[in-house]
Amino acid sequence: MSTVKATIITIGDELLIGQTIDTNSAWMAQRLNELGIDIERRVTVTDTKEGIKLALDEEIPRADIILMTGGLGPTADDITKPFLSEYFGGELVVDQQVLTHVKELFAIRNRPFLERNLKQAEVPNVCTVLFNKVGTAPGMLFESNGKFIVSMPGVPFEMMDIMTTGVLPRLKEKYISDAIVHQTIITSGEGESFIAEHIKDIEEQIPVHIKLAYLPSPGIVKLRLTGRGANQEQLEKEIAGIQSQIKERIDNIVVAEEDIPLQEILGRALKEKGATVCFAESCTGGYVSHLMTQVQGSSSYFNGAIVPYQSKLKHKVVGVDATALDEHSAISEEVAIELANKTRVLMDCDYCLSLTGQLSYGGEDDHIESGVVWMAVADKDRVETKRFKFHYDRWINKEQAAQMGMLMMWKFVNNKL
Amino acid sequence: MSTVKATIITIGDELLIGQTIDTNSAWMAQRLNELGIDIERRVTVTDTKEGIKLALDEEIPRADIILMTGGLGPTADDITKPFLSEYFGGELVVDQQVLTHVKELFAIRNRPFLERNLKQAEVPNVCTVLFNKVGTAPGMLFESNGKFIVSMPGVPFEMMDIMTTGVLPRLKEKYISDAIVHQTIITSGEGESFIAEHIKDIEEQIPVHIKLAYLPSPGIVKLRLTGRGANQEQLEKEIAGIQSQIKERIDNIVVAEEDIPLQEILGRALKEKGATVCFAESCTGGYVSHLMTQVQGSSSYFNGAIVPYQSKLKHKVVGVDATALDEHSAISEEVAIELANKTRVLMDCDYCLSLTGQLSYGGEDDHIESGVVWMAVADKDRVETKRFKFHYDRWINKEQAAQMGMLMMWKFVNNKL
Repeated sequence: MSTVKATIITIGDELLIGQTIDTNSAWMAQRLNELGIDIERRVTVTDTKEGIKLALDEEIPRADIILMTGGLGPTADDITKPFLSEYFGGELVVDQQVLTHVKELFAIRNRPFLERNLKQAEVPNVCTVLFNKVGTAPGMLFESNGKFIVSMPGVPFEMMDIMTTGVLPRLKEKYISDAIVHQTIITSGEGESFIAEHIKDIEEQIPVHIKLAYLPSPGIVKLRLTGRGANQEQLEKEIAGIQSQIKERIDNIVVAEEDIPLQEILGRALKEKGATVCFAESCTGGYVSHLMTQVQGSSSYFNGAIVPYQSKLKHKVVGVDATALDEHSAISEEVAIELANKTRVLMDCDYCLSLTGQLSYGGEDDHIESGVVWMAVADKDRVETKRFKFHYDRWINKEQAAQMGMLMMWKFVNNKL
Repeated sequence: MSTVKATIITIGDELLIGQTIDTNSAWMAQRLNELGIDIERRVTVTDTKEGIKLALDEEIPRADIILMTGGLGPTADDITKPFLSEYFGGELVVDQQVLTHVKELFAIRNRPFLERNLKQAEVPNVCTVLFNKVGTAPGMLFESNGKFIVSMPGVPFEMMDIMTTGVLPRLKEKYISDAIVHQTIITSGEGESFIAEHIKDIEEQIPVHIKLAYLPSPGIVKLRLTGRGANQEQLEKEIAGIQSQIKERIDNIVVAEEDIPLQEILGRALKEKGATVCFAESCTGGYVSHLMTQVQGSSSYFNGAIVPYQSKLKHKVVGVDATALDEHSAISEEVAIELANKTRVLMDCDYCLSLTGQLSYGGEDDHIESGVVWMAVADKDRVETKRFKFHYDRWINKEQAAQMGMLMMWKFVNNKL
């Protein structure tokens, strides 16, 4: 077991109020996890001396590493820096490198450097400055009584830069941790309890230093094996063995053996085949295409999409047969097939996925059944269809529809449909 | 000042590991905030007795309300329920209503009800069951020593249902809080420090019971006024007065006086005019359309979009002049104009926004300048263009491009361009 403990403290009224979602903690945790450092706790506090002091007083004694984000910024909200200076027994002084940098950043963006901005270059004289090259607020490292305490700005890309260039290298050097190995199996088609029942005997045999967690999300259940031990190679062997047993047992529902999103899994499958894909997204409004284009290199297999949100445009833009639209509604197997076939040809693709449906409940269209989405996947030779029923609100339904659509296309591309 | 304090405790290794982003806390915080209840702290702990016990031991003495999510589920991860039962001095018993419900849910989804599922219907006999109609795990309310402590599943829509039907009505009844008033001004075009300098004198006059916070996000700076007091009407007047002063001072950069996302602001502007919009999204891959369709009722003004990700499709699908594509690159003012004009006609719209650019840095296309996006907004009479340069990674650049695009369209629709 790793004995090094880390705690994350995020500072910000906007987090506690619910204005901002905390994405920083997850990112930092993943990076520390890769180093084999456990995050034991995470605390979010107000932008006040009292809130920050309480957190530091409580968390410092029980952790080796404290990562703090937030509370730093150019306006009246700036309480953290003077407070930390006082807390660690120092004084604020202007750092020349930071000052030059802040002035440069202002110049690049044609912003006048005002008097109130001078304090952005101040740092406590009891810290190591962790240079922030993509923003104005420097990171600060306080190494006090053997503890490693860092304060960083809350802006995500600034925190990431300081972590990557200043924090992680120092953590790697200072703390040698046990080997930690993760393996993920992504499944689709059965729920948690069904899977658990089916691998019950395998799970009961898992040794104490390896943990199996079930992580459900729309349309998917991820199984995550996590092991810790002194010997990396041995650990990898052990986990590979358990993974292999599990995979064999539930092979028909396994989608991937790596923890990557569906758009990446589908992208790789297309790349392997040298194939291209496009989408006819009616109800999902461009969301599937957006997800596909979040993947670096997607332009090599993603040609584009049509979002014919208005019914008439399915005919006008895509060329869906007008009679089909009249006879069956826009939300029908027939129209899903037309959309997939016609869009595929229009966009010069090998594959096309179409989604047509009604994601909202309680909308204006009472005559249309809510939550129903028809999907079709087509290549030059054939087309497969499926009718889905989603049960939640329009936003969760959209997420689920997108996941199920990409999954359906993945199965089609892999001849599993 | 409200004297009622609330703390959120989220349970889950997957949160601490960074596998899952905590969106529950923000949602719960917003709901409590609407009731005028402060969230003072938020703690995230491991799925262990020790982790949960430490959090409860520390947080219960200093808060009136504790909202807990996570740690409840159908597999081996279920530690929380037995522990809470013990912690509050009770025993687990089967709740008949929950049992019937769980069996029904399994039947609807054609899942066999297994023996291991019986414990999902168990609840501590020292709690009030908060019925979960959209999932299997019931919420549990422990009212102990005047404290209000709730445990709910971590699945978002299940937590939301239990909060809405079980928790919030009880909180409303039990705790009468000060009036709390929020007002937001959304601005675009200047940074935090510039705005702060320009309203410095107004800000210095703000009374102690009203707070002004600056909330920057891509392309936007929100100014949020929050006030607390005994008298709702008086508070509203005070805040309206300050808001009005600020608005007058920085009028040229004010986008809205309500805290709603740009897709909603743009949607309302279009609805007011009875106008329709469509998008030609090359680099943003459908993201703008996705955002627009997140708004209930968007089908009344959003016709659709084309995502001509591959260059040739700009000509083949949209009809962009082939010569224009050859002479200028796909990322040019000329092509942006063609995309906007042609897509607008193709999709039978009043307005069209086109975005063509290179969001990634370090991609395959060395000859194309990274971060550059040309945007054009067109109606039947005219077209306006703008060249943007984004500085970060492809994901943040996409977010910023989408925000700036919707903003540009909003200005165009409001004759401010």
